[in-house]
Amino acid sequence: MKHMRISQVISLPKGFQAAGIVAGLKKSKRKDLALLYSECPAVMAGTFTTNQVKAATVKLCSARVKQYRKGRAIVVNSGIANACTGATGYRNAERMAQVTARALGLKPEEVYVCSTGRIGVQLPMHIIEPGIEKASQQLSRTGGMAAAEAIMTTDTRPKYCTARFNINGRRITLAGIAKGAGMIEPKMATMLAFLMTDACVAPAALQKALSAAVDQSFNRITVDGDRSTNDTVLIMANGVAGNTPALTPQHPDWSTFTEALNAVALDLALKMVKDGEGASKFVTVRVRGARNAREADIAARSVANSLLVKTSWVGDYPNWGRIMDALGYSEAKVDESRVDIFYDGMPAARRGVSAGTDIERLKAVQRQKEFTIDIDLHLGQGEAVVYTCDCTEEYVRINM
Amino acid sequence: MKHMRISQVISLPKGFQAAGIVAGLKKSKRKDLALLYSECPAVMAGTFTTNQVKAATVKLCSARVKQYRKGRAIVVNSGIANACTGATGYRNAERMAQVTARALGLKPEEVYVCSTGRIGVQLPMHIIEPGIEKASQQLSRTGGMAAAEAIMTTDTRPKYCTARFNINGRRITLAGIAKGAGMIEPKMATMLAFLMTDACVAPAALQKALSAAVDQSFNRITVDGDRSTNDTVLIMANGVAGNTPALTPQHPDWSTFTEALNAVALDLALKMVKDGEGASKFVTVRVRGARNAREADIAARSVANSLLVKTSWVGDYPNWGRIMDALGYSEAKVDESRVDIFYDGMPAARRGVSAGTDIERLKAVQRQKEFTIDIDLHLGQGEAVVYTCDCTEEYVRINM
Repeated sequence: MKHMRISQVISLPKGFQAAGIVAGLKKSKRKDLALLYSECPAVMAGTFTTNQVKAATVKLCSARVKQYRKGRAIVVNSGIANACTGATGYRNAERMAQVTARALGLKPEEVYVCSTGRIGVQLPMHIIEPGIEKASQQLSRTGGMAAAEAIMTTDTRPKYCTARFNINGRRITLAGIAKGAGMIEPKMATMLAFLMTDACVAPAALQKALSAAVDQSFNRITVDGDRSTNDTVLIMANGVAGNTPALTPQHPDWSTFTEALNAVALDLALKMVKDGEGASKFVTVRVRGARNAREADIAARSVANSLLVKTSWVGDYPNWGRIMDALGYSEAKVDESRVDIFYDGMPAARRGVSAGTDIERLKAVQRQKEFTIDIDLHLGQGEAVVYTCDCTEEYVRINM
Repeated sequence: MKHMRISQVISLPKGFQAAGIVAGLKKSKRKDLALLYSECPAVMAGTFTTNQVKAATVKLCSARVKQYRKGRAIVVNSGIANACTGATGYRNAERMAQVTARALGLKPEEVYVCSTGRIGVQLPMHIIEPGIEKASQQLSRTGGMAAAEAIMTTDTRPKYCTARFNINGRRITLAGIAKGAGMIEPKMATMLAFLMTDACVAPAALQKALSAAVDQSFNRITVDGDRSTNDTVLIMANGVAGNTPALTPQHPDWSTFTEALNAVALDLALKMVKDGEGASKFVTVRVRGARNAREADIAARSVANSLLVKTSWVGDYPNWGRIMDALGYSEAKVDESRVDIFYDGMPAARRGVSAGTDIERLKAVQRQKEFTIDIDLHLGQGEAVVYTCDCTEEYVRINM
């Protein structure tokens, strides 16, 4: 990736400001309200949960993205999901946009609203409204970190990164913040992530690039197989960097932009898994040799979501038999007499039976904080990768 | 169910003997080898895992059931699953049948073989073979309890029951033993269960009755959503009770027999869930109002297998929002504005939002050892029930 550099900082692109404050929604008195603001109109794109039960905020944002493809601000609360809250919930989401718009001198339709936290509870608007006022007064070009902190729920650390690259001689910044850490799961955008860039990008192109990036990042992670009601990824591109013409797939530097976008999305997605609720190990599950890519994906997810596989990773015993079991009950075609399984390249199973590798060598792999399970089904050319984590006692404690 | 009585004992039907012994497969030195024997040829039927990865013993038993529909003995070892063991594993399963046949003076094809335990490990035949000899010498009409104990793995208690009823003036006994307690899951027979009856039943009728009973019992339970490689239910009907003619669906007392069979199968299945690995609560999930029965089943399983729902049951907070979430991402059609959720009949959600019931009253339900979640999707007439348990820290400890 020539000319592109990712840094583990949150450095807002030109023309963006952010804030993160304590409104008072959380018992812990931690930050719970974030505001992202573009000083000029930005092109917007988004991807949203495919869960049939959608948070009020998802309904509002997806309608806005479809209708306007533009925006100026994103207001986010953590602690309460505003999901399963009916007409009152939707009115509250609209109200959050109105209050934000009034505080910033915008139109309500220029404001996007996201929520994350407990499902089925109404937002206390008497806390939210003054919170938005307060956040709007604290907006600053260095407020990215506070915003990253304010969107956290069970996350143990804020998640952010910043990419820098050049297009048409202009220096472009693409920064993102995200939150996990439970109800993280297969298929379509998971969790909340907000990306900001000062690049000038055509609206349809931005949506296309975002959808592609999400498909290879947030859609490839799973913590617990539970797809949330609130999953949302939004990107704002305000064009302040001054690159012209607006980026489209026909632009010679389009791939520079999409590479940066893909890299930022993947960076944030992996951070989400590594900070999965209670997670002690990060595991990459790669399947190759499936009949096709779809079946490779199904097989990889079956392994990555198997409770018995995930709990086995907590200890050091490389229980490849449970991986065989999860492959066998997946909807992907599997011929057990052809399956090879590797732990960081070391063979555990060959043709469906033990490869005879010294168990201590396999244990040494599984004792690591990060390792890769490679599975070859030897049935075709289909490949897929899923990023996941183990399931520990701590996961149960967090969610009970 | 007139004339039919279920007792919480294991009382072998006439003409059956059983044994359970310590062969030496388990580090714990607990019983690990069971033998079930009919003094005369018995009609046999079976249902097996639908996992594409099948234990050697499943391959052997399913072939035998298909080919012969008759048998005299079932030999079972616990501790090692004989799954993912290739040609050697199949030869070992055949060898177990041969050794059992020799010890009992039978033909090898009259012996069925089952294994349960760790996947991917070869059976130590030098331990198994003398174990079979020993078990054959200990066969007795009171050996049912020892057999029930010898098939246990992570089970905390043996599972058995006995039904008694009359057909054509003959007293019939139907007894069963079963084991769980992990890798217990949706779709098709789960775990091991062995049923014995002295009724005289026509072969095709017996298979039909067994498949129907399994569908409403073992196929309706889930502990962790992981479908095992070894799931097997076998029934032997030896006709020693002397009822004639052989039972078929045309017989006036057919329903007496199937009611007893269904009741025994359900009793054992529920025992399996209640003794699910680490389980502290038994939960019945009923869905009604789905577009059809298939979608009701999908919705109920989505709830019962959601890790976030299962962990929420450990505590006392009735997190119905997670149930909404799991319904929403299921493949069943859901309209969130129509969903009602009840805890032991007490409304938690009405039309997709909080029903306003006092939280303390809902907490009191969830604090119980057993409760029922009723879900009405209000979209049609489809109904389904799934029996499950919570997912505790103990589950993780057992499987790590």
